[in-house]
Order: sequence, then C-alpha cells, then structure tokens
Amino acid sequence: MKLVKIAIAQSSCGHNIEENMKKSALQVEELASKGAQIICLQEMYRSRYFCVTEDYKQFELAETIPGPSTELFSVIAKKYQSVIIIPIFEKRTAGIYHNSIVVIDADGSIAGVYRKMHIPDDPAFYEKFYFTPGDLGFKAIQTKYAKIGTLICWDQWYPEAARLTAMMGAEIIFYPTAIGWDATEPQEWGKPQLEAWLTMQKSHAIANGVFVCAANRIGQEEDLTFWGNSFISNPLGEIISQTTHEKETTFCIEIDLDQIEYYRQRWPFFRDRRIDSYSEITKRYID
Amino acid sequence: MKLVKIAIAQSSCGHNIEENMKKSALQVEELASKGAQIICLQEMYRSRYFCVTEDYKQFELAETIPGPSTELFSVIAKKYQSVIIIPIFEKRTAGIYHNSIVVIDADGSIAGVYRKMHIPDDPAFYEKFYFTPGDLGFKAIQTKYAKIGTLICWDQWYPEAARLTAMMGAEIIFYPTAIGWDATEPQEWGKPQLEAWLTMQKSHAIANGVFVCAANRIGQEEDLTFWGNSFISNPLGEIISQTTHEKETTFCIEIDLDQIEYYRQRWPFFRDRRIDSYSEITKRYID
Repeated sequence: MKLVKIAIAQSSCGHNIEENMKKSALQVEELASKGAQIICLQEMYRSRYFCVTEDYKQFELAETIPGPSTELFSVIAKKYQSVIIIPIFEKRTAGIYHNSIVVIDADGSIAGVYRKMHIPDDPAFYEKFYFTPGDLGFKAIQTKYAKIGTLICWDQWYPEAARLTAMMGAEIIFYPTAIGWDATEPQEWGKPQLEAWLTMQKSHAIANGVFVCAANRIGQEEDLTFWGNSFISNPLGEIISQTTHEKETTFCIEIDLDQIEYYRQRWPFFRDRRIDSYSEITKRYID
Repeated sequence: MKLVKIAIAQSSCGHNIEENMKKSALQVEELASKGAQIICLQEMYRSRYFCVTEDYKQFELAETIPGPSTELFSVIAKKYQSVIIIPIFEKRTAGIYHNSIVVIDADGSIAGVYRKMHIPDDPAFYEKFYFTPGDLGFKAIQTKYAKIGTLICWDQWYPEAARLTAMMGAEIIFYPTAIGWDATEPQEWGKPQLEAWLTMQKSHAIANGVFVCAANRIGQEEDLTFWGNSFISNPLGEIISQTTHEKETTFCIEIDLDQIEYYRQRWPFFRDRRIDSYSEITKRYID
C-alpha cells in the first residue's frame, strides 16, 4: 500500500485580498495540522472571480512567482511537511499574465509551475482578455508524497490534457476550479451542467487509471453562483469524497496509490492505445 | 430542426446462427416499419460472444462483406428506407479476421465499413486471438439521414477514438457492444463497472458535442451476464433513452441534430483545443 492523505479547501471569496488569503491559510493550516499531505486550493483562491468583466484594473491582482502566495504557503508547507497546490493569477511581466498553479513541496520549496493551457471565453468568463495561454505544456510534478498532475478548470473538458498529464506519470490529477451557475441561463440547465462537469472528470480518472481531485469555490459573485461540489474520484470513476455547493468546507481523505496499478492491470487501456492512428489529433478539424 | 429517428435492437443470442439472425431481422423490421431511420444492432449480433475461449472452430462463424448479413439487411434497408448498422465477425481472407461494422444506407447499398481499432484481451474476452486490429482508421460515414461515427465496444474507453471520429464530422457515434458482468469477479464490482461504462460514453458526447448511442446484448453466456443498458446520450451527456439488462427490447427516439451546433456554440471546446501541444498523444508513454 502507498497511502497518501489528500485534501481540498473550498471557500467563497470577498473583495478583500488579505482576508481571502487569511481564510485559505487557516483552512490549509487546519488540514495540515491534522496530517493532510497534499492540499489543493481552488482556482485563483485569493480574489473574487474577476473575469466576469473585462476590466484593466483587475490586472493589479496579479502576483509574481515567487510572490505573496508562495511566501505565505511555503512557511505552512515547511512547518507541517505538507505539499500545497496554489492557484494564482500570475504576472510574468508587463503584458503577460497567466492563470497558473504553483506546487509547493513539503520542504517549502517550489516543486513546479503549471500555466493553464485551455483558456475559456464565454459571457461572464472573459478569460482570454486576462490570460495568455500556458506555454509550459502539461505537467506531472514530483513531490514528496506523489507525482501530481496539475490542470485548471476549462482544461477539465479536454481528454487530451488529462491523457498527456497521465502519460507523464501523474498519479493524482488536481483541477482547481471556478465554475458555477449563471443566473442569466435557464435554471433547468443547472443540474445537467453540474453532472457533465462531474462526468468529464470521472472519465479522465477511468480512461487514465488515476485519481482525480477537483477543488471549486462557492458563493455568489455577480450573476454567478459557484457550485462547489469539490470531489475526489478513484481510478474506477467512483467519487470517494464530495462537498456540496452550500458551505465553506474542507475534506481530507487517505487514498492508496497502489490502486493505480491494480486498476490499470484489470482495465489495460494504456496497453491497447492505437498510437499509430492518433496523429490527426493535432488538427483543428478533419475536413 | 434536423430531426432523425434513431433506434437500437438489444437481444440475447443462442447457439443457432439462423435463429439469431431471424430474431434481429424481426426487431429491425419492426423498428423500420414504425419509421426508425437509423437502426443499430449489438456487436456480433448473429452469434454468441465466442471470445470467451480461444477456439479455432469459432473462425467458421466469420463472414465476408458482402455476405449473409449484408444480404439480409440490405433488403430490409431498401424496403423501409432505413440505415442499418450491422456489426459482424468479418473474414477478410484466410488468416485475417476483423471485428467490423457494415453500414447499409437507406437504398440498400453499403455506405461504409469500420474495423474495430482497439482490441481487448482479458480473461473471457480473448479478442486478440480472433481479430486483427482495424486498418481503416476511424470513420464518419455519410448516410441518407446523418453522418454517423462507428466504433465498437473496447473503443469506448478511448477518448482519442471518439475525438477523431467527431473531428471527421460524425453527428452520432454508435457503439455496438458486448459487455457484461463476469461471475468470477466480485459482485460488488458490478455497479461501478456499469457506471464507468456509461460515464465514459457520456463524456465522449460532452467533450465532442455529439450524440452517442450504445447497443449492447443481454443474456447469460458461460460466466458472462451481458448487461444490456443500451442507451442514447445527447451532446450534454444526458441519457435520453435507456434499456435495462433484463429483456430483449428496442427503442426508437427522435433526436434533433441541430442541437449539436447549439451546444458547441455554448460549450466551445473545439474552439480552444491546444493542437500545438497534443503531439505526444502518439507516444505510448512519456518517460
């Protein structure tokens, strides 16, 4: 058995950056002090989801790597020997900003950085205005407790992203997320949208024989109600822990990474991939 | 609106080939006479699932294209102006056999052939002994009523297969299937296995904005209990028609192919694919 305790922190965000950071730090510290070994925060944990409008002023929220978030969580990581997954609004230089993840290893050092590869742009999710698409490719980052895959929100709709991340050796794929219901859309869309979101991520767990863990925010921001439902799925696509959309909460669950090999032997999808026939995946469309 | 009536026929199979063919032909004729425009049979509809053992004698079951199955269903297709999807055990030549689909168009002609690309091999599913992996690539076949994608059973666990099929313009992906519970496995695996099978196929509908339709067999054959549950999912991953594992049955449902564009505009996953970053999909593993 290769046991690892993984955890997520789910919260709402207010207008005050310091308070958001403090709230998340408290959640993380509580989880770490109870033994959580890998802890994942939600997408852009330290601010409201500012992409609901295109507003130059919001660029002030961007931070560098290292920066305030890595400073804060490096100390906690080192103190408790926990790995912490921090999703930030990254300022790379003037005019280049990314939606990124920094992984802090258990010794407080930066283990790796991922920059969101798939950038959405829909009414109330104007991310293409803010974020340059990632140029670091997909990532599986070795940490003290596991090799972890890092993807962000919109990435979760792309089987290619999960596949490549798993092919690099990721044992758990983390999806920090900011997704919710839009009050301007018909209410009856709510359930199938949430179901589709769960279905896609469970499918990545199954197809790749990995654990998948999503950390989403909650709370009302403008017309958006973030739907929480942070969860973790085993390699069989079974949700083994899940929150609701109703409250700020955390969970910590012990998983056995040896299940990956167990399931991959029984469902040997990797064995039979027709890699001689996939090259057109790199096309936009096959006309 | 671009309305199409699609249907599946789900049945058990006995040892008598003629009787199996007759049973399926009756199901198809009843569906067609009631207006079904595209009808899908289950994987290798005319025999028991012989891959439970490796037995040279079973090669006698293989048939050519054209052959008995195309002859039988061409007549029905033409009579009722229905498209029929016929999964067969194909004899290509001595020593080359495939697990294939023949699509008969509404005028009785052969619209296209697909040969199963991903071949499983697990206890009681010894398909690598019988079938050469397909060499025709993935297929989207234009028929009178829709452009249809054809994949078979084990293919359904591969996001690459669904993606490439959808990228070729398939509006509905059909998965003739022979999957079931194995009495030699723990009983508690049954529910998550069935759930995983549904999850994977719904995920293909969502990720690609297409309809997905699976036709599975039922019945007890050796240690296998085929789990039926033939279904159709809309592009949002909602199951809009589904059978159980308990009886021989059919369904016919009218779908609107214009929903594909509607959902793809609202969930524009195709727009944002990072085709500059997917080339390693053609590797076995990224070491």
